[in-house]
Amino acid sequence: MHELGVVYRNIRRADSDVAARLGTLGTATVHEAMGRTGLLKPYMRPIYAGAQASGTAVTVLLHPGDNWMLHVVAEQIRLGDVVVAAVTADCTNGYFGDLLATSFKARGAQGLVIDAGVRDVRVLTEMEFPVWSKAISAKGTVKVTLGSINIAVVCAGALVTPGDVIVADDDGVVVVPAASAQKTLDAAAAREANEGSKREKLAAGVLGLDMYNMREPLQKAGLKYID
Amino acid sequence: MHELGVVYRNIRRADSDVAARLGTLGTATVHEAMGRTGLLKPYMRPIYAGAQASGTAVTVLLHPGDNWMLHVVAEQIRLGDVVVAAVTADCTNGYFGDLLATSFKARGAQGLVIDAGVRDVRVLTEMEFPVWSKAISAKGTVKVTLGSINIAVVCAGALVTPGDVIVADDDGVVVVPAASAQKTLDAAAAREANEGSKREKLAAGVLGLDMYNMREPLQKAGLKYID
Amino acid sequence: MHELGVVYRNIRRADSDVAARLGTLGTATVHEAMGRTGLLKPYMRPIYAGAQASGTAVTVLLHPGDNWMLHVVAEQIRLGDVVVAAVTADCTNGYFGDLLATSFKARGAQGLVIDAGVRDVRVLTEMEFPVWSKAISAKGTVKVTLGSINIAVVCAGALVTPGDVIVADDDGVVVVPAASAQKTLDAAAAREANEGSKREKLAAGVLGLDMYNMREPLQKAGLKYID
Amino acid sequence: MHELGVVYRNIRRADSDVAARLGTLGTATVHEAMGRTGLLKPYMRPIYAGAQASGTAVTVLLHPGDNWMLHVVAEQIRLGDVVVAAVTADCTNGYFGDLLATSFKARGAQGLVIDAGVRDVRVLTEMEFPVWSKAISAKGTVKVTLGSINIAVVCAGALVTPGDVIVADDDGVVVVPAASAQKTLDAAAAREANEGSKREKLAAGVLGLDMYNMREPLQKAGLKYID
Amino acid sequence: MHELGVVYRNIRRADSDVAARLGTLGTATVHEAMGRTGLLKPYMRPIYAGAQASGTAVTVLLHPGDNWMLHVVAEQIRLGDVVVAAVTADCTNGYFGDLLATSFKARGAQGLVIDAGVRDVRVLTEMEFPVWSKAISAKGTVKVTLGSINIAVVCAGALVTPGDVIVADDDGVVVVPAASAQKTLDAAAAREANEGSKREKLAAGVLGLDMYNMREPLQKAGLKYID
Amino acid sequence: MHELGVVYRNIRRADSDVAARLGTLGTATVHEAMGRTGLLKPYMRPIYAGAQASGTAVTVLLHPGDNWMLHVVAEQIRLGDVVVAAVTADCTNGYFGDLLATSFKARGAQGLVIDAGVRDVRVLTEMEFPVWSKAISAKGTVKVTLGSINIAVVCAGALVTPGDVIVADDDGVVVVPAASAQKTLDAAAAREANEGSKREKLAAGVLGLDMYNMREPLQKAGLKYID
Repeated sequence: MHELGVVYRNIRRADSDVAARLGTLGTATVHEAMGRTGLLKPYMRPIYAGAQASGTAVTVLLHPGDNWMLHVVAEQIRLGDVVVAAVTADCTNGYFGDLLATSFKARGAQGLVIDAGVRDVRVLTEMEFPVWSKAISAKGTVKVTLGSINIAVVCAGALVTPGDVIVADDDGVVVVPAASAQKTLDAAAAREANEGSKREKLAAGVLGLDMYNMREPLQKAGLKYID
Repeated sequence: MHELGVVYRNIRRADSDVAARLGTLGTATVHEAMGRTGLLKPYMRPIYAGAQASGTAVTVLLHPGDNWMLHVVAEQIRLGDVVVAAVTADCTNGYFGDLLATSFKARGAQGLVIDAGVRDVRVLTEMEFPVWSKAISAKGTVKVTLGSINIAVVCAGALVTPGDVIVADDDGVVVVPAASAQKTLDAAAAREANEGSKREKLAAGVLGLDMYNMREPLQKAGLKYID
Repeated sequence: MHELGVVYRNIRRADSDVAARLGTLGTATVHEAMGRTGLLKPYMRPIYAGAQASGTAVTVLLHPGDNWMLHVVAEQIRLGDVVVAAVTADCTNGYFGDLLATSFKARGAQGLVIDAGVRDVRVLTEMEFPVWSKAISAKGTVKVTLGSINIAVVCAGALVTPGDVIVADDDGVVVVPAASAQKTLDAAAAREANEGSKREKLAAGVLGLDMYNMREPLQKAGLKYID
Repeated sequence: MHELGVVYRNIRRADSDVAARLGTLGTATVHEAMGRTGLLKPYMRPIYAGAQASGTAVTVLLHPGDNWMLHVVAEQIRLGDVVVAAVTADCTNGYFGDLLATSFKARGAQGLVIDAGVRDVRVLTEMEFPVWSKAISAKGTVKVTLGSINIAVVCAGALVTPGDVIVADDDGVVVVPAASAQKTLDAAAAREANEGSKREKLAAGVLGLDMYNMREPLQKAGLKYID
Repeated sequence: MHELGVVYRNIRRADSDVAARLGTLGTATVHEAMGRTGLLKPYMRPIYAGAQASGTAVTVLLHPGDNWMLHVVAEQIRLGDVVVAAVTADCTNGYFGDLLATSFKARGAQGLVIDAGVRDVRVLTEMEFPVWSKAISAKGTVKVTLGSINIAVVCAGALVTPGDVIVADDDGVVVVPAASAQKTLDAAAAREANEGSKREKLAAGVLGLDMYNMREPLQKAGLKYID
Repeated sequence: MHELGVVYRNIRRADSDVAARLGTLGTATVHEAMGRTGLLKPYMRPIYAGAQASGTAVTVLLHPGDNWMLHVVAEQIRLGDVVVAAVTADCTNGYFGDLLATSFKARGAQGLVIDAGVRDVRVLTEMEFPVWSKAISAKGTVKVTLGSINIAVVCAGALVTPGDVIVADDDGVVVVPAASAQKTLDAAAAREANEGSKREKLAAGVLGLDMYNMREPLQKAGLKYID
């Protein structure tokens, strides 16, 4: 049962430097480093190509068609945070526009991840304030019902705990629990490290079949070549 | 019951200047000024980022997979119109391409809103002819069955009467009844007028909580802060 | 019943020159020239605006969440091929990223058409390696189960036989059977030939109603004009 | 622009006998008799197999997640009405359950058509109170925002004016404007009249090809038989 | 490229006895016996619970919103056939109702599989004429454009060749190529044969972990139990 | 980050009597008693009308197309449990059929909630083993990859912790945290208690407007009646 009407002011954020470095590695690499877990549903899309953000999660639970708590969450943002907004039922309304983006940016937010809709996307794009959302819609919202700030929320199918690391780019959004952020960074960095040489070999025409020694397992699995 | 096989040649268009000025205010502001009504479903998306149009509605009712009436509607377009196309059943075929766009543009159309598919989107983008649609598809259509021109239609969930004002941009499409266009413009302009100062304050770090005097109603509603 | 665990090395490819020329005509024209058949479902979208590819199909049948066979297919690619990937059940995982794209490109592939997800879309865009897919997702895959290479597959609702011509652009993806590629090219080129003069007339304000002699058939069908 | 906060108490209802007789003909026949118009989107499904209702429309416009106006509409129901509920944005919440059904039934309602969700479907089924909805969901609603009663609404893609005839069964929901109810009944009854003899012939093995004299038009259209 | 306007009168049907026996084994068992291939997309649902059919495929290719060819296919039905209907683009119209069902049944059809909509479902249910479809809709169709009969079609993502075996039940629809029908029957029957004893053991509380000897491979894969 | 390859054998289950009594109150009442939280997405539907289950959650995390862990979870079931199965990515395969149902039932399971597909639904219905799922599909699965048992999972958008109470019926599925099960039961029972008298009044024609004293707040909110 979600706690309603509560704002947790003190959360333990993951290390900001670790969050920033996870961001440079990108969602695909980070998600692989976590054993292929932690990804939000692929319907979450950036509002412009090339959007990128990473930071520590400040969470907000909203009600359908009601964006009141986005004003409450603004006060809890610290430099380097990414706001993660969940809704208690499916809704595509445009909860967030250029005024809130101006406020969030002034407070130090790196971006917004919202399992609902946003609007003013042209201005948000010009501001380079990145948002990942389920929909784009001019549809407005009311300010009537209390939700909560900095409780654990389920956003687009993933559990996000306040302080977790959020990495988001063109490929989607991944959440890294604060407790495993450093370990994930190490694994992701190791993964990334040997990609350069692989890329060179593949560009030179070497086949993955040979580079990854796949021919034998494929044969064992029964693959047959027919001329 | 939709009237079929009829072309209404004389429609009463909303004031073109009002339509143009509503366009500069954008869909989100106009939709708010109308008490949050008038928006088409958010699946209606522009074919390119930054698309913008506003004008008076010329309507066309089409049948699934049949674009015959788009040729009929071309003759009814006047400078400043936006064509609004509804279909009697769900269909994603590409009803509209670069030849029709050339014709519509020559007749003075500001854009097309179609609850179906379009094609030739690269050329349409180069021509800067804005289209809002449900789908993009190379799938062609036949020219067999009569629909109607300038009757009231339901397009993407909204009732559009010929002569209404259509405002469309990255955030979606909104329809403003001709009779309330001026009133809506006034309300929207008033709304817009005080956004500039709000934006400045928010950019300076002032919180919406304070600017909108939300702290008291939030407390009354029972919001609790926990350290 | 799909044959599983088989790689056909020798396929009869359509003429590469015909494939290239079909590409310049675009999907809408080619699909019309085929009697409005051959189009993949419109949920197949390019990962960047302006993507274009044409070539001969090399096919691969994959299992959900398993991209092993993409490494096997790389070896079968020849200059001018487009890889067409089908999956035995719905899946949005990101099967394909920048390393595989580097390999495919080095082998001469013109692009990829995949009825599933892709990732690393920013890098693919920078590489200008065009992909048409059902989804974009950072979600990775395993390498466990055998599929097949160069068997007939159903991809996004269309039957693709190895060696067929694939034409893909912003409007979607169309498959042209190798046996009818030349005939389709002739029909498509003829269609294209008289579009130029049509475009000029329409731009000058001539109506399609007159240019296509539609007034009489519309009247016969019962269309009524009301002033 | 939808009028908000208004209850029209006096509406002109279509003839109740005509409404009842349209109900016996069923949605498919009635929709054909209207020139294949008037049908709500096919996502509207009855909550139990065999549900049937026909009557005069009493309309209600709701907001997402807010069922307050369903209590207001109850007072406006007269014997023989079908309540038609539209929502200003997509929502699947369960707006309606057994208590409201008890009330609606007591007031004489024949059923409910709602472009949103319902709940308590087991009890509604036991009560034999038919509902056509977009979803079934236990998700509750609030009672905060005013909508309107007996204004024209767009419900599941169709325009419904208060007093129109609603016919609903397993095949969907169709709206017949009050002004054309009698004409539609005549056309539908005529259509139905000669179905009996057709059914007998077809049951005896006569082909539609012969019964409808289709062989010649098919041949003219170019149909070829190949042995 | 689909051949349009052609009726193939002579097709080679799979053995009718084999088709009937595959039907008794059910879709899940048959699909497993085929190496988990051959299944149509799961959006294909029976119009009533408990629907079951098996037989040899007679195919028909339809255009969106046009059911003309369903009358043509009726003549090609032989006792024991299942009609498989594909459409050249997505469409949910009700192509098929009680009159066509009466005709199909009189001709000996076992059922219909259609990648579109049907109507008159109450009557079809009473007639016990089973249909698997994508939608239920009262929406009617025209009779204008030629399709084809007994060509290979892609229906709900699966390739169906005339004469193939179709097995359909509550779990979906599977297509078995005529050439491998006997082999599939043997494999499916073998699979079924030892299910009885398994069911008894499981009912007695024996775990699949033990019955299938899974404990060792699970341990090898690294599964850890924590108390 | 989900823990993979782990089976927690000892979980703290909510009180079984409380779970049973919550079941008699139904999902709508329980969900309201929780402040309208705890509901799984409404795409989760029972495989037969009238399905009902309540019990304590035993959880399993599965991979797409892989049901190996369902055999592992069977051993952890105790009388009164409901199995809750989540999948790491969207998948509609039929993970669960009559053999597993036989085993689960023998172990004492009250039902299954699975964010994926099931099969053998006719037999499951005959067995009266209730399942709530996202899809029905004959599509089989492999047994290759480890998931986990009795970890916290996100199922259909809701967080489920092992031992929580699951209540499921025709209206959907709700999860009640073990720690608040008693409190929720008290609130739900209180809610239910006064529904009987309300129902009687409504059945007698009393309006909710009067029974709930809504007339004054509606008037204050500005509702206008027009004759």
